[in-house]
Amino acid sequence: MSAEGARGRRAIATVCLSGTLEDKLAAAAAAGFDGIEVFEPDLIAAPWAPKELAARCADLGLSIDLYQPFRDLDSTDPGRFARNLRRAERKFDVMAELGTDTVLVCSSVAADAVADADRLAEQLATAAGLAADRGVRIAYEALAWGRHVSTWDRSWDVVRRADSPALGLCLDSFHVLSRGGDPAGFAEVPGDKLFFLQLADAPRIDMDVLQWSRHHRLFPGQGAFDLPGFLDHVLAAGYTGPLSLEVFNDVFRQADPARTAVDAMRSLLWLEEALAVRRPRPGTGAPPPAPSLTGYAFTELAVDGLSGPQVGGALAALGFTHTGQHRSKPVQLWEQGRARVLLNASVVRPTGAGVAEVAALALESEDPGRSAARAEAFLAPVLPRTRGVAEADLSAVAAPDGTQIFFTRTGPDGWPADFLPTGAVPGAGAGLTRVDHVSLTQPFDSFDEAGLFYRAVLGLGPESVTEVAAPFGIVRSRAVTGPGRAVRLAIHVSLLRRGEWAPGVPAPQSIAFATDDVVAAARALRAAGTPLLAVPANYHDDLDARLELDPGLLADMRECGLFYDEDEHGRYLHLATEVLGSRVFFEVVQRLEGYDGYGTANAAVRMAAHRRLRTRTTA
Amino acid sequence: MSAEGARGRRAIATVCLSGTLEDKLAAAAAAGFDGIEVFEPDLIAAPWAPKELAARCADLGLSIDLYQPFRDLDSTDPGRFARNLRRAERKFDVMAELGTDTVLVCSSVAADAVADADRLAEQLATAAGLAADRGVRIAYEALAWGRHVSTWDRSWDVVRRADSPALGLCLDSFHVLSRGGDPAGFAEVPGDKLFFLQLADAPRIDMDVLQWSRHHRLFPGQGAFDLPGFLDHVLAAGYTGPLSLEVFNDVFRQADPARTAVDAMRSLLWLEEALAVRRPRPGTGAPPPAPSLTGYAFTELAVDGLSGPQVGGALAALGFTHTGQHRSKPVQLWEQGRARVLLNASVVRPTGAGVAEVAALALESEDPGRSAARAEAFLAPVLPRTRGVAEADLSAVAAPDGTQIFFTRTGPDGWPADFLPTGAVPGAGAGLTRVDHVSLTQPFDSFDEAGLFYRAVLGLGPESVTEVAAPFGIVRSRAVTGPGRAVRLAIHVSLLRRGEWAPGVPAPQSIAFATDDVVAAARALRAAGTPLLAVPANYHDDLDARLELDPGLLADMRECGLFYDEDEHGRYLHLATEVLGSRVFFEVVQRLEGYDGYGTANAAVRMAAHRRLRTRTTA
Repeated sequence: MSAEGARGRRAIATVCLSGTLEDKLAAAAAAGFDGIEVFEPDLIAAPWAPKELAARCADLGLSIDLYQPFRDLDSTDPGRFARNLRRAERKFDVMAELGTDTVLVCSSVAADAVADADRLAEQLATAAGLAADRGVRIAYEALAWGRHVSTWDRSWDVVRRADSPALGLCLDSFHVLSRGGDPAGFAEVPGDKLFFLQLADAPRIDMDVLQWSRHHRLFPGQGAFDLPGFLDHVLAAGYTGPLSLEVFNDVFRQADPARTAVDAMRSLLWLEEALAVRRPRPGTGAPPPAPSLTGYAFTELAVDGLSGPQVGGALAALGFTHTGQHRSKPVQLWEQGRARVLLNASVVRPTGAGVAEVAALALESEDPGRSAARAEAFLAPVLPRTRGVAEADLSAVAAPDGTQIFFTRTGPDGWPADFLPTGAVPGAGAGLTRVDHVSLTQPFDSFDEAGLFYRAVLGLGPESVTEVAAPFGIVRSRAVTGPGRAVRLAIHVSLLRRGEWAPGVPAPQSIAFATDDVVAAARALRAAGTPLLAVPANYHDDLDARLELDPGLLADMRECGLFYDEDEHGRYLHLATEVLGSRVFFEVVQRLEGYDGYGTANAAVRMAAHRRLRTRTTA
Repeated sequence: MSAEGARGRRAIATVCLSGTLEDKLAAAAAAGFDGIEVFEPDLIAAPWAPKELAARCADLGLSIDLYQPFRDLDSTDPGRFARNLRRAERKFDVMAELGTDTVLVCSSVAADAVADADRLAEQLATAAGLAADRGVRIAYEALAWGRHVSTWDRSWDVVRRADSPALGLCLDSFHVLSRGGDPAGFAEVPGDKLFFLQLADAPRIDMDVLQWSRHHRLFPGQGAFDLPGFLDHVLAAGYTGPLSLEVFNDVFRQADPARTAVDAMRSLLWLEEALAVRRPRPGTGAPPPAPSLTGYAFTELAVDGLSGPQVGGALAALGFTHTGQHRSKPVQLWEQGRARVLLNASVVRPTGAGVAEVAALALESEDPGRSAARAEAFLAPVLPRTRGVAEADLSAVAAPDGTQIFFTRTGPDGWPADFLPTGAVPGAGAGLTRVDHVSLTQPFDSFDEAGLFYRAVLGLGPESVTEVAAPFGIVRSRAVTGPGRAVRLAIHVSLLRRGEWAPGVPAPQSIAFATDDVVAAARALRAAGTPLLAVPANYHDDLDARLELDPGLLADMRECGLFYDEDEHGRYLHLATEVLGSRVFFEVVQRLEGYDGYGTANAAVRMAAHRRLRTRTTA
């Protein structure tokens, strides 16, 4: 493999994916990877001899870019070192059959690891000499928890001392960045000594680095590390090998590998774009830049014969007007200010079960066609759209949770033309002006995937991850937002599965409408009979004990059933309705002085109240 | 509440249980707790005013033993301290309505926490004075991650300096033991200064102590801490309050609270027995000591019309003989040596789906009646047993995964008398002598519960927890064993839920038979057509590369498809069959030189091979 030929190649370690090696290869090939790192335990459990694996990979268009890992090579015990060399030679034999030329050797974690840099260099050079005899080479990597070599500069010092052509460095972003290493230092390493590069992101967690590495790595763009900056330094130093992902993650280990592989590929596309290292791909080119998103054009709820009237009634009580009826489908358009909700009775099967859920989000894009092209370039599944004669062409892609995402520019000749006016004229309503945000609970396996999806596909910025001790288990949340906060989307996930005990609302979703006067809105809503969620008096008592709120405001909050939160910018007042149908509720929110959150601190109280209503309903 | 009156009382913090406060109270009362700690967020989310909660608790027979937690009381900022006192007074008001006399104040974690011991003592004394005015008292606790007070002896130093009657200590076993604190030091604290005791166990994990505490605490007897030793020191120092559990655990937070509360109560019963602090309970008395268990009398598999012949055929090929037929039910008895397997075709509904699973384990007890009485005393669900006229009276309880546990003494007039001889005489068989161990995958929510269940109910000793990166996600395992290893049971759990990607064998179970010559057994099994699992050649190549095994042994292993493991005692050779029916397979194992494990290192290879067969079957 020539250095030039490898530039821009994308690889994935088999350990990133769930299943047997057969499952993993199929997933990596389908997602368009050029190569793989073979994780040794995957080979050991495979039914194929190494030569058969090589043939299988060739058939799938995958090169084998790395065999990994070889552990604990060096030793202060000469007998053990001799046995380790024997083991290495056996593995070099395997590599020859695999047709791969590079093996990853990790810094030793063993009690007999060599501390002296020259002696260690000598042992590595000896092994590299045996490797060279068989036409292979060793990429030496500092594990962040290595016994004597735990930083990349220490690994480079040893490689430099060894001065063997068949010995170079493997740089791993996790091992470098988890230890606070400075990638600027890579500049001192000759490019031809950078044998391999492994990429992984991670959330910032204060925990043992080995556990952090083995269970919580993420694909680039999903965590808190600066991967573009890291990669920039690696490439500037002259690295020409593949961009290869090595992510140990407990969720990915048990999720559909076909899906994880697409998520992984998306992370590399995002990273390449972030770095402006763009490799024109035949027929596609680099993804077009993300157009501005200026708000929600509409949100669409799937309802049935039971939930439809309930949700419609709630919208009416919230001050919405049923202004339009779709020309060809049982879809209603409800409007208030710039907030628009579609109730679609054509998609839920079976009907009559009370299902109500978010089916689609339509986003205002400055260039809907470009938004759609970008989504496709970032591997978003493009959805077929069954259109009637007079219906607008809305491009749609599927988000990881199955929600449809439309890109549109709302105008008279656009999607509203699909609706015949009902004749009803929107009145003053309750002062709700637009959609502030939408909250969607994600399937367990796709929370991190969703964060990257919205970041890459829509160009939204991810905010930090928060966790709430909710009544039925820990809930993890993250918001993604656009510039100027014109689009806000909050995603959530229950951290553990639920057994048979699941009395709350499963996977709740909400649409939050903005208002400039939530107290006035709340009074109007109550007067109109909106099914508002009751907030316990204990909640307001505690607020008062903690925050000494203005008595007038506190009285309003008690009267109106408002939740309260504050951040470093400002304050937030919000209310919720009861759950309508299976899992949707509405919120009305007022942001004061630039509050930038979502009232997550109140989620547990809200969930307990929602659960209480369920008990009442079913009792 | 007088000190004497409280002795032996059992309490649980509401934070231990999932659900709303209503759910938690119902669960705690049903499990027989005497009191609760009210976790403030649970009260805040509750619809009842504090007085209503007090009445509700009284109705349920629960006292409110503690209100908790009050955070960040002390402050270097006088204005903030004044606000904190105001907040405290509001909470004292709440306590008055609740009718509880003790509030937990944690050491501050805030940036403005007071470092100077005298000033801190002065502030605590001020707060305690206000508490005393309202007839309540403060139990001060050192959080392990407190800013200036993070050890129990530092908290005691502050309480001693404050010298206020309404200020005492709360000791929390997690905070003390996680920091390596020495409970022997409690002896210097006057008993009347020990205001409260919170008990929690935990596994040893190398992680940030706050995360460890908030997510991974366990009930006593489930983790690695010496709770009996801890409690012994607390009681020796003169503590007379309730034994109260405060366990933050992500699994319990989302599991059925009724079940968690029983698990919690069992942990206290176990702890009291371990300490020999036995409080005779009306009608029951202390649990009787655990009788010796000397082995498996039989294991019973539930089969149906499709899986029954398949499992029976496999048993025949394994060298078992169908020696008996149940007098009144479609149950077959198969025997080889002291290994006995029952195939029960009466319990699976619907039949014909190929279900095969472990329905019951019958254990040889030196005193079956006492084993059953102990199980009942430790809250094991006692199962009704539909018996025919001539059928032995087998006491049965349900394990957390639903498996029935029988206690018996095998003899001619016991359970074997329920079976009519088939006339078939057991031959030489394949040299399988007895059941070595049974492996059972647990439902996600009940892994820790199961460990304590077997420990408390059966008197088995838990071994350390191991984790394996299996092909479909991390699997956690733990064995429980009896004296002399006569009974071994390995339990497993998939750490995360599974989404739609679940191609392996769901929740596999196995019965492992012991042999003194696994090579001879394997040859016999193969000759008899046993559906043995193929072990990849790569696996044996890797063994040879790593371990330089004796060439003859290695050749035998390759020929016979044997797995290999070794520990500090000896070596282990084992083989597995294919999965029979839905989720059961058999193993044949040979322990050499006192090997004491279960071949966990080979689980991933075995699971990949089992999954491969499933692919073949369904393809």
